[in-house]
Amino acid sequence: MRQTDGTRILVAQGGGPTAVINQSLVGVVLEARRHEGIARVYGARHGVRGIVNEDFVDLTQETSHNLELVAGTPASALGSTRDKPDLAYCQEIFKVLRAHGIGHFFYIGGNDSSDTVRIVADEARKAGYPLRSIHIPKTIDNDLVANDHTPGFPSAARFVAQAFAGANLDNAALPGVYVAVVMGRHAGFLTAASALGKKFPDDGPHLIYLPERVFEIERFLADVKAMHQRHGRCVIAVSEGIHDAAGKPIAAQLAKDLETDAHGNVQLSGSGALADLLCEEIKAKLGIKRVRGDTFGYVQRSFVGCVSDVDQREAREVGEKAVQYAMWGERDGSVAIKRTGFYSVDYELVPLEDVAGKTRVMDDAFIADNGTDVTDAFRLYLRPLLGSGMPDAYRLRPAPVPKVLRA
Amino acid sequence: MRQTDGTRILVAQGGGPTAVINQSLVGVVLEARRHEGIARVYGARHGVRGIVNEDFVDLTQETSHNLELVAGTPASALGSTRDKPDLAYCQEIFKVLRAHGIGHFFYIGGNDSSDTVRIVADEARKAGYPLRSIHIPKTIDNDLVANDHTPGFPSAARFVAQAFAGANLDNAALPGVYVAVVMGRHAGFLTAASALGKKFPDDGPHLIYLPERVFEIERFLADVKAMHQRHGRCVIAVSEGIHDAAGKPIAAQLAKDLETDAHGNVQLSGSGALADLLCEEIKAKLGIKRVRGDTFGYVQRSFVGCVSDVDQREAREVGEKAVQYAMWGERDGSVAIKRTGFYSVDYELVPLEDVAGKTRVMDDAFIADNGTDVTDAFRLYLRPLLGSGMPDAYRLRPAPVPKVLRA
Repeated sequence: MRQTDGTRILVAQGGGPTAVINQSLVGVVLEARRHEGIARVYGARHGVRGIVNEDFVDLTQETSHNLELVAGTPASALGSTRDKPDLAYCQEIFKVLRAHGIGHFFYIGGNDSSDTVRIVADEARKAGYPLRSIHIPKTIDNDLVANDHTPGFPSAARFVAQAFAGANLDNAALPGVYVAVVMGRHAGFLTAASALGKKFPDDGPHLIYLPERVFEIERFLADVKAMHQRHGRCVIAVSEGIHDAAGKPIAAQLAKDLETDAHGNVQLSGSGALADLLCEEIKAKLGIKRVRGDTFGYVQRSFVGCVSDVDQREAREVGEKAVQYAMWGERDGSVAIKRTGFYSVDYELVPLEDVAGKTRVMDDAFIADNGTDVTDAFRLYLRPLLGSGMPDAYRLRPAPVPKVLRA
Repeated sequence: MRQTDGTRILVAQGGGPTAVINQSLVGVVLEARRHEGIARVYGARHGVRGIVNEDFVDLTQETSHNLELVAGTPASALGSTRDKPDLAYCQEIFKVLRAHGIGHFFYIGGNDSSDTVRIVADEARKAGYPLRSIHIPKTIDNDLVANDHTPGFPSAARFVAQAFAGANLDNAALPGVYVAVVMGRHAGFLTAASALGKKFPDDGPHLIYLPERVFEIERFLADVKAMHQRHGRCVIAVSEGIHDAAGKPIAAQLAKDLETDAHGNVQLSGSGALADLLCEEIKAKLGIKRVRGDTFGYVQRSFVGCVSDVDQREAREVGEKAVQYAMWGERDGSVAIKRTGFYSVDYELVPLEDVAGKTRVMDDAFIADNGTDVTDAFRLYLRPLLGSGMPDAYRLRPAPVPKVLRA
């Protein structure tokens, strides 16, 4: 690699951190360092905001050994942002890119970030600035179109499956109703992953509420009552994004001060209000005494020590592929994961406008007819993504002792 | 082992499940199966409630292979209870024990459960019934006196440390204030474990609030303001048991309907109210915009796949030792863990009345003078308990790129 001339590339991370987003970062950096045409690999601190602030670090000066250790560390090592660039913001970006001689821009993020890449690419084209812009997918929500799944989702899904496997055991030990709220604004994939924590037919989660279906509190209460009567207990997975028939989030109906981000999204996470509301309804309307609610919150996307090895590998590869597309391809785009076997994947560079700002939700084939469970098609879809070494739960087999006094 | 005569023993699990309580159960069963004097090993379903209901399973008929798999599964495999037996309840217990020819009673649980064992043992003595009663320690709260630590705590502490390690990375990526509420009614050990998730000097948790110190909202806000100014962000660990100078839990000041269990304990877990209140205070009083709260809830005690191997080994041993004390000892008691080196332990049978109903809290030597951090003594105390293979977090080392436009 030459030190002074050749292309300079810039990589940044946007949106919510994941367990494997640094794999993609390191995939970009290590692959870029192999290419003679690339002189420097810069990282922008805190996404597009770091670009306009010229807040760059030189990743060419980082050791490959430390890069590997960072790759195995969750959450965005460069820092992230929720900023959504408008025209003025993008003009600032260009000024900076031009001043630093940046030729390739790689942005790792979800559908908001892919939209950012699309705007930046558009502005570059309009301004006649020669920029190759590649979006690298990442989101625990698994809501990018054109992808079989997105890096970050498998590890978060693994956390949710393991958490529900444990919550089910806890609830079986001390029976009652347990409600846990899972992240996912529009897409229910992560909430649906709770089903993979189930082993025996009477295990929880017994009910799963997804944003792909309208949530009605009366039907919810009837479901809980029936399940509690059947099993003497009930474990429930609820998406933070559940909403009424008008599309209004159930969580938003409770919040006193609605906080919205730059993308106009109402804040759903970082509050236990939804779980608490549902628990209070169950206590009040069904008269069940032991009702407990958890909100998995930020732990589900950042927990250190729960990662899918499949997710790690793929997250690394989308970073590598992004550089290969940039160096040997002729166009901007978004790296997409395509499933080619059970289980194998390949990658494709799809047009940015195919992905940007669009939201994928769960296919009807993944949701059971009753609307409160997943199908075998979903189980088969998700199982290989969770990776190797999934912990397993075992039970004592029944060998009842005859009663003496009450015989 | 003879099939028809010899002693019958009964084992049960009480209180909140842990990641390793089944290790102790299996320790009892497998050790008991080695003793010729023990004919049958019964397990009571759902603690003392299962005894009065004669709801027994014959663990002599379970395979050692499945017992090993159950040992590795979190949460009480026999089921648990929150019942606290009074005299009439205990008389029911005796009737059942006598009818089934039970000679040894092993109860795995925390300080409420040790009190149950003490009452049962007292009643047996008063009734002239020959019962050997042994309490086997278990509690994620680590609040049993006479013990260096209690089985279940190390694994829960490991979860909390790993969760804060991840939350710190997430918060560094998207800066703001993050508050997470950790279990522990009277003892702050589990909340203090958050400090073990810290690696670099500026990592969070930046503030730790323990029930061993009086919580004042004004001081809390001043602490958060100062830390946020210093680091541009702030990660906070809060015990669910924080209370005002009068001893009233901060959480209880919010709850509309105070739910109490049979032991008179106010329900603190299973609600996100405390985290939400603290977040609202920070937003309102300090004007910080990005404030997020999580409540670790039941996940921290039941998560499948986060366990300390040291905890597993010791939990197994307290079960084994309980049977050995029962067979070769002459008295009732509670198995206690004593630290003998760095790191090694031995076990002792201590009188039930030394443990029963008493609550250990954190020693002053474990709490920093400012009241919002732990000391090195605590770090040294906890580190070996977390076990092997703790995940680690790494950072990019700074190599700033000179600014061009803003040079």
